[in-house]
Amino acid sequence: MPSKIPNETIEDGSDVLIVLDSHKRWLSKVTSGKQFHCHKGFFEFDQIIGQPYGCKIRTNKSIDLTIYKPIPSDYLQHIPHSSQIIYSKDAGMILLNGGIHPGSIVIEAGTGSGALTSILAKYVGSEGHVYTYDNREEAHTTSKKNLERLGLDSHVTLKLKDASEGFDEQKVDAVVLDLGDPCEIIPHAYNSLKLGGVISIFMPTYNQVEKVYEKLREFSFGDIEALELILRGIQLKRNAIRPNTRMIGHTGFLMFARKLMGENQQ
Amino acid sequence: MPSKIPNETIEDGSDVLIVLDSHKRWLSKVTSGKQFHCHKGFFEFDQIIGQPYGCKIRTNKSIDLTIYKPIPSDYLQHIPHSSQIIYSKDAGMILLNGGIHPGSIVIEAGTGSGALTSILAKYVGSEGHVYTYDNREEAHTTSKKNLERLGLDSHVTLKLKDASEGFDEQKVDAVVLDLGDPCEIIPHAYNSLKLGGVISIFMPTYNQVEKVYEKLREFSFGDIEALELILRGIQLKRNAIRPNTRMIGHTGFLMFARKLMGENQQ
Amino acid sequence: MPSKIPNETIEDGSDVLIVLDSHKRWLSKVTSGKQFHCHKGFFEFDQIIGQPYGCKIRTNKSIDLTIYKPIPSDYLQHIPHSSQIIYSKDAGMILLNGGIHPGSIVIEAGTGSGALTSILAKYVGSEGHVYTYDNREEAHTTSKKNLERLGLDSHVTLKLKDASEGFDEQKVDAVVLDLGDPCEIIPHAYNSLKLGGVISIFMPTYNQVEKVYEKLREFSFGDIEALELILRGIQLKRNAIRPNTRMIGHTGFLMFARKLMGENQQ
Amino acid sequence: MPSKIPNETIEDGSDVLIVLDSHKRWLSKVTSGKQFHCHKGFFEFDQIIGQPYGCKIRTNKSIDLTIYKPIPSDYLQHIPHSSQIIYSKDAGMILLNGGIHPGSIVIEAGTGSGALTSILAKYVGSEGHVYTYDNREEAHTTSKKNLERLGLDSHVTLKLKDASEGFDEQKVDAVVLDLGDPCEIIPHAYNSLKLGGVISIFMPTYNQVEKVYEKLREFSFGDIEALELILRGIQLKRNAIRPNTRMIGHTGFLMFARKLMGENQQ
Repeated sequence: MPSKIPNETIEDGSDVLIVLDSHKRWLSKVTSGKQFHCHKGFFEFDQIIGQPYGCKIRTNKSIDLTIYKPIPSDYLQHIPHSSQIIYSKDAGMILLNGGIHPGSIVIEAGTGSGALTSILAKYVGSEGHVYTYDNREEAHTTSKKNLERLGLDSHVTLKLKDASEGFDEQKVDAVVLDLGDPCEIIPHAYNSLKLGGVISIFMPTYNQVEKVYEKLREFSFGDIEALELILRGIQLKRNAIRPNTRMIGHTGFLMFARKLMGENQQ
Repeated sequence: MPSKIPNETIEDGSDVLIVLDSHKRWLSKVTSGKQFHCHKGFFEFDQIIGQPYGCKIRTNKSIDLTIYKPIPSDYLQHIPHSSQIIYSKDAGMILLNGGIHPGSIVIEAGTGSGALTSILAKYVGSEGHVYTYDNREEAHTTSKKNLERLGLDSHVTLKLKDASEGFDEQKVDAVVLDLGDPCEIIPHAYNSLKLGGVISIFMPTYNQVEKVYEKLREFSFGDIEALELILRGIQLKRNAIRPNTRMIGHTGFLMFARKLMGENQQ
Repeated sequence: MPSKIPNETIEDGSDVLIVLDSHKRWLSKVTSGKQFHCHKGFFEFDQIIGQPYGCKIRTNKSIDLTIYKPIPSDYLQHIPHSSQIIYSKDAGMILLNGGIHPGSIVIEAGTGSGALTSILAKYVGSEGHVYTYDNREEAHTTSKKNLERLGLDSHVTLKLKDASEGFDEQKVDAVVLDLGDPCEIIPHAYNSLKLGGVISIFMPTYNQVEKVYEKLREFSFGDIEALELILRGIQLKRNAIRPNTRMIGHTGFLMFARKLMGENQQ
Repeated sequence: MPSKIPNETIEDGSDVLIVLDSHKRWLSKVTSGKQFHCHKGFFEFDQIIGQPYGCKIRTNKSIDLTIYKPIPSDYLQHIPHSSQIIYSKDAGMILLNGGIHPGSIVIEAGTGSGALTSILAKYVGSEGHVYTYDNREEAHTTSKKNLERLGLDSHVTLKLKDASEGFDEQKVDAVVLDLGDPCEIIPHAYNSLKLGGVISIFMPTYNQVEKVYEKLREFSFGDIEALELILRGIQLKRNAIRPNTRMIGHTGFLMFARKLMGENQQ
């Protein structure tokens, strides 16, 4: 029984993921009258406008590229960024263990290039909101551009402000810290979280885990947990299935904790 | 500046997470006039009604328990289940890499106790929908109860039906397979996905990875990827930070692929 | 062409490894006139005397046990011990990266139950020697018994002495530290090593890694390296090959460094 | 109390490990009258002859290099090789769990560049022996050169012979397989092992693990075990201790089994 529902088609202005192979892939905006260029040749965007996602296009050098509609993990891997961006394994865990879902009110520090911001914005949806802090002009500009491009800017308030001076919001559901010195932000996170709200912290070193742990205990946080996620890619080759030879050995540690009623709690 | 927004309070009928320590924790429904019992004593639910989340309650045996508002990862760990349920590390990755977010239309097979279903339902939100298939009466009953309890039943259609006979839906955004023999469902998944839609498969053995890989290639799926996530808990102890001695070494492999335009594509 | 060389046979007084399955296995001394007892029944040692290693013996409860000649990894797992003993993955790395081989002169601190001592003694062979320090009477007694039992006591000098007071030996090839506070022993290790000699340190926490690193730099050690080895067991089951569900997530970190010529070097 | 024992000194003809940093290091033969050259300049070998190991030497470009006496793990990393060579983590485990120690008689197939052979030869010592099989001329030549250079050729018999045609030795203590198709060699390994002797197999893929497992069961091998060792390097940096960002994710699986008495056993 063939479906009557049409497949979604690529339009002028659509963001598309263009895939050559598992390593070479680009996030690009379809622009009528222009071309997409890579080291394997080029094609006209007009050739794919009106085509369904999942179609293939041949470059002038006779190389086939596949056109996909981007999914959240593609944003993380491919949006323009200047510093290290978070991996989808870590971002996914932050959603579930950080208590972030459609409708959540979330504070993030720091914004960086807006990669994690875009994930938070996507998953809090139109009924939730993300307030994100960064005091670097460049981060502000890059993340603004990235969020607009992904159509997520209406879910986000970008604050060009130093998180170490405190947050403006109160009784939020979740705070996410992904910046150099999370310890000094923890008191502000405590103040801005609602009771039972969750703080999620991403940090690369053991030394930070230790300091963050001490700080969380100092500020009536409970249910403190630290972990790391190790992603092992599997080589897919007929009769030779095995973990990949090379891998990213470490991205960072994740810590989660929930705000308890403190002694002087309002 | 003290906030005027009140903290959310525990009500009669609320689902709460009651925490003794990192190992002993229970998901429970607050019921006025009844008691909560555990091996460390009991307390009256009426004592916590009206209190904010994050409060502490002392049992008759003078043991302090903390009351939290459940977050998505708590559902996964604590809802009643008969078989192995998915871990939040894997469920989070399925959201981001499986292209599942607010508004998505998703098919799941099989339902099991509804743990993963509850996560999918939570994150597709009120604008998305989950169709979940299982032909076992028991799974149907358990998952129905679990989803109602979590207030997520309106986002889900439970189908007491064998996925190997095909799905009723067409042009869905994503299909998630978490059942014994995923291979025989792959053709149906292909038929029901929209072009560019993502299939996510969770499976415990390398033998399944190999067979699924072959099947995905047979059915014009592209961008095929296999991986596993290893979660290492970190021991938080002053001056003795280290990975935990014991850990879960393996839950399952994850595979992701996207539907390409096939030769006879409608 | 059948071999003329006879298989080695089990004798009165031999140490044997008795195996029920991968979890239940015992190191035992064959004693004529006595019986071996376990929860699956018993057999007479005289029944296996004269039999070759690799034979099977049936208990009075009709359960088959297999009798093996112990190999070095069996010592580590099965000799009597009071504290945590080292794993063969870590001991093997200490041999190769710690520069310990037939003929080596090695200092070890502390002895513990003598498990690692037995491995060092086995591999330095009759031309090498191990000096091992522990100031606890119990460790001394247990390790003495274990080494005698394994026939390795002639390769070892047991010293009932506190390593923090220094070592008596000079210009040794290698020093191995496996004790609570390795830092205070590092200066003594430096003094007792020959130039280019290797120090190997086993320690469970990241905090120790950090302190040991600082101490090694303070004392002209070069080529400093830290690592951990994670062992994943694979489930061997037809058509269901996969990593085991449960595993030991962490035993300890290993550090290696080599003695450089210092400023006041003799 | 200064030691009277002299430190070992570098001689004409010594093999030395020359270290620039943790990545740049060379195994080199000291040759009077010649120079050592690298991208950081050169020095005269005569400058280090008579110096103790652990000394430093400055190149003509004013870069300090450290001279060490090679230890077994250095052989593995630095001897000339054409194909992938085994890592010390895996070789160390093969010693302990493969029942290989001073005095052992061992068969190895295939020889390759002789890296693992050199480790086996080093640890069986002068009282043991290694018989190693490879039918490729190039492997024969390279491994011969490498073993002579390390002074280990007297412990080894190199056989330019295809292991799939069987081994000449009988009742050996251990067999080590590190070649493309280990399955077809398993029957020969069974025939050549003494009862209770151990077979160690190194192989990269899951598919091989499965096939080897079936073959080992077919041939009365007991105590079959499969595992993999994952080595995580730790970044040593003051106040920033953490696992390294990049790592080797997989070298191979290790399997161990012991020869049982079969039905038609001699």
